[in-house]
Amino acid sequence: MAKLVFIRHGQSQWNLSNQFTGWEDVDLSDEGVRQAKNAGQLLKAEGIEFDQAYTSVLTRAIKTLHYALEESGQLWIPEEKSWRLNERHYGALQGLNKEETAEKYGDEQVHIWRRSYDTLPPLLDASDEGSAANDRRYAYLDPRAIPGGENLKVTLERVIPFWQDKIAPKLIDNKNVIVAAHGNSLRALTKYIEDISDEDIMDVEMATGEPVVYDLDQQLNVISKKKLN
Amino acid sequence: MAKLVFIRHGQSQWNLSNQFTGWEDVDLSDEGVRQAKNAGQLLKAEGIEFDQAYTSVLTRAIKTLHYALEESGQLWIPEEKSWRLNERHYGALQGLNKEETAEKYGDEQVHIWRRSYDTLPPLLDASDEGSAANDRRYAYLDPRAIPGGENLKVTLERVIPFWQDKIAPKLIDNKNVIVAAHGNSLRALTKYIEDISDEDIMDVEMATGEPVVYDLDQQLNVISKKKLN
Repeated sequence: MAKLVFIRHGQSQWNLSNQFTGWEDVDLSDEGVRQAKNAGQLLKAEGIEFDQAYTSVLTRAIKTLHYALEESGQLWIPEEKSWRLNERHYGALQGLNKEETAEKYGDEQVHIWRRSYDTLPPLLDASDEGSAANDRRYAYLDPRAIPGGENLKVTLERVIPFWQDKIAPKLIDNKNVIVAAHGNSLRALTKYIEDISDEDIMDVEMATGEPVVYDLDQQLNVISKKKLN
Repeated sequence: MAKLVFIRHGQSQWNLSNQFTGWEDVDLSDEGVRQAKNAGQLLKAEGIEFDQAYTSVLTRAIKTLHYALEESGQLWIPEEKSWRLNERHYGALQGLNKEETAEKYGDEQVHIWRRSYDTLPPLLDASDEGSAANDRRYAYLDPRAIPGGENLKVTLERVIPFWQDKIAPKLIDNKNVIVAAHGNSLRALTKYIEDISDEDIMDVEMATGEPVVYDLDQQLNVISKKKLN
């Protein structure tokens, strides 16, 4: 039996300002820092001893991981970062205010972009200024792996190889794993682990900074799930 | 040509209270945090883009790395931690006040423990409460690899395999590397890289939180060295 903990990053500055974030590297707000430290206290009280940490290459998830691990006395555990755990890429919507976008395109369209499993947002070109293709942290990637915009379906398709190659083998080996990531990359993992339908997954919410603890057997069946708060 | 940066952790709470620290997991002082952030600003001003970070499994070095990387906008780079980059293990002296130890054993003896290349401190047993053998972070290690106390010679012998297996291959591959570690593990690396004698190395000082920048050629010869401050 292994423990798997998901933690969505604490509140970010763009959560506060109501902007589409995606792969934009936005920092935590002060409240987000507080949430991350509180998550660490909850993990400490729960007594979970981690063997491995995974996170994305985005600062808000990395810092959430570090605060949570430090508060629980485990900053020293091995950590691996991957673009595969990044937030859903929001394409050309990144940086836009959600309310203004709704005024421009209509509530219905924005609702579809946010909540449809397989509708893509307006895409960014590799030549666009905001494209991840211009960011040094993705320079080693096959250009065809760098998204111009994603729906949850596409997000899931790039998250699951990381689950299969990195996270699952640790759990099968009875190691306790913490994954600090994002609303949609964690939603993708949740869908896969709990076998949730394309329709139902869009209603699954992950609260910022609230650890979700799974007990999994060696076939990776969910034995129990609880949220710490 | 690759860049290699060493950074000794910022001031710790036991630097302040003048205690032998070694493998004890002591946090940074407020001044240490300030030094680490300042190091990040200096690295940012220098424009160094890192490909890989290495640090020890001790909180003061890990936090120094994180603060420095965050300040320079590179918290997302890959990080690997290893016990091989830990501070010199100070054996049974760990936790003792340096002044009180000098009163008890004499200045001369303490000077030898601190400055001799190959004199061991009084050793800890694996059964002693303070032994690293009782710390979960070393549970996966061959018990014979866990020191009861080290001199700089022994420290060097366990640091160099990490240099050879991890750091050097990156530099030969033209990657820029940052190593956040400790006075003596960095002194060991400095001795090896610069081919400094057993006698002279004990006079080499590393200032807390002050980045040392090397340019190395692909044969790992030192082309230039400078300190940022």
